[in-house]
Amino acid sequence: MAEAQDIPRVVEQLAEYFRHHPSGSRTDGARPAPSVRTASVDVSRLKGNADLAPYIDHTLLKPEATREDVTRVAQEAARHGFATVCVNSSHVATVAAVLVGSTSVPIAVVGFPLGAALTSAKAFEAREAIRAGAREIDMVLDVGALKGRDWARVREDIAGVVEACGPVPLKVILETSLLTRDEKIAACVLARDAGAAFVKTSTGFGSGGATVEDVALMRQVVGEGVGVKASGGIRSAQDALRMLGAGANRLGASASVAIVSGEQSSAKY
Amino acid sequence: MAEAQDIPRVVEQLAEYFRHHPSGSRTDGARPAPSVRTASVDVSRLKGNADLAPYIDHTLLKPEATREDVTRVAQEAARHGFATVCVNSSHVATVAAVLVGSTSVPIAVVGFPLGAALTSAKAFEAREAIRAGAREIDMVLDVGALKGRDWARVREDIAGVVEACGPVPLKVILETSLLTRDEKIAACVLARDAGAAFVKTSTGFGSGGATVEDVALMRQVVGEGVGVKASGGIRSAQDALRMLGAGANRLGASASVAIVSGEQSSAKY
Repeated sequence: MAEAQDIPRVVEQLAEYFRHHPSGSRTDGARPAPSVRTASVDVSRLKGNADLAPYIDHTLLKPEATREDVTRVAQEAARHGFATVCVNSSHVATVAAVLVGSTSVPIAVVGFPLGAALTSAKAFEAREAIRAGAREIDMVLDVGALKGRDWARVREDIAGVVEACGPVPLKVILETSLLTRDEKIAACVLARDAGAAFVKTSTGFGSGGATVEDVALMRQVVGEGVGVKASGGIRSAQDALRMLGAGANRLGASASVAIVSGEQSSAKY
Repeated sequence: MAEAQDIPRVVEQLAEYFRHHPSGSRTDGARPAPSVRTASVDVSRLKGNADLAPYIDHTLLKPEATREDVTRVAQEAARHGFATVCVNSSHVATVAAVLVGSTSVPIAVVGFPLGAALTSAKAFEAREAIRAGAREIDMVLDVGALKGRDWARVREDIAGVVEACGPVPLKVILETSLLTRDEKIAACVLARDAGAAFVKTSTGFGSGGATVEDVALMRQVVGEGVGVKASGGIRSAQDALRMLGAGANRLGASASVAIVSGEQSSAKY
């Protein structure tokens, strides 16, 4: 397998496909630069585990999480200076209230974790979550459409949520454990072209999480103008540093406090 | 544990709670009878495995399902006479098109599988899915609110989707594997009082599926005026008959063809 040729080959396949599907909302070139940092991190400049905090999305997505659980997680984020708190949309208002006056902001996931909801439903959930206080949105891409090579639908789905988000940065979760290498490349190209601010590896609910190989591939495809978030299975500072070293500039973790404290966690998500 | 006393005790706890939370949309007594069959099934009248078909919701919910996969499942439903085809909301229009002229109807799941989306997002997804052709809606309840004993929120969440559904019957998925016995009872009471047509055991994505004990408990709580759907882990005609015998009157399965053909399946959902 000529790996170095993978990316241009898939890019050309997509370009050829879209020459015959000219409709839609292709926005590459026209979209404004995201209002968040997207570039890779110089890991050599990190002096200690606490320096990882600004790269971490402190995450609590399990369905049985109570308002009390979510409040505690938001307080931890404010205390440790994590970038964000990532929750399901019903918890955004609670998180936003706790984070007032801190540097952390709320993220809502939408169409989560299957990515198989209608685009209109994902877009509506994004709008409502932003109204409730979300300052970033993490959506799951339409994995089934990607598997069916219905690339126009994949791109339209992302573009519909980009539009709903307005100035709020959108991350697109690929769920890499379900995808072939070519599908990962295609997903990155489609997300970038549809105006996503980030590509993200995993939901934490699939069969696998972030890998160094996937993160490196995703960074190679999207370049420095789109961010790369590694998520799923990041439980220690060592895991975090490996992902940043591979090209991630944001990390999704529930073990965030353990990570910045130099501990190992057994938490799943 | 005085099991016979469980149900009246939890019912009284809820009644006491709602005496102090009088707001909201309690609809018990006022709601119209559901337009679907809700009563238990007389299993002794089933003559063969093919007679199970009208009780089965033929289900395909995995995120990587393509339009082609969903089309095949809908064709199977039309051929075997399954009650419905249960899919994620992005696939409803495809299913509805295939089912034209058959006795099967499309179901969309909403807020699936975590139940932690905003009520407004669940309600919007239900409306959009109905517009796309869904004739039943299966929602996941707000498990975190139930765990936090925020019963008003649980009921409002269900009532909001009931309202969005209009005449379309709504099932409420409890995700029983996450719940205590008291929480299962409370969820059934809240779903019934909020106007749900069915309670349903499981998403198929949690740590456990339907059990005979849970189905029997749910039927005991909701009576015959609300349906009980057993879902998760039903892979053979024997499984199906056990669930119907325990009080279920609808079965969610992906192994539906194997069930009516008398085979055993290894499919997960």
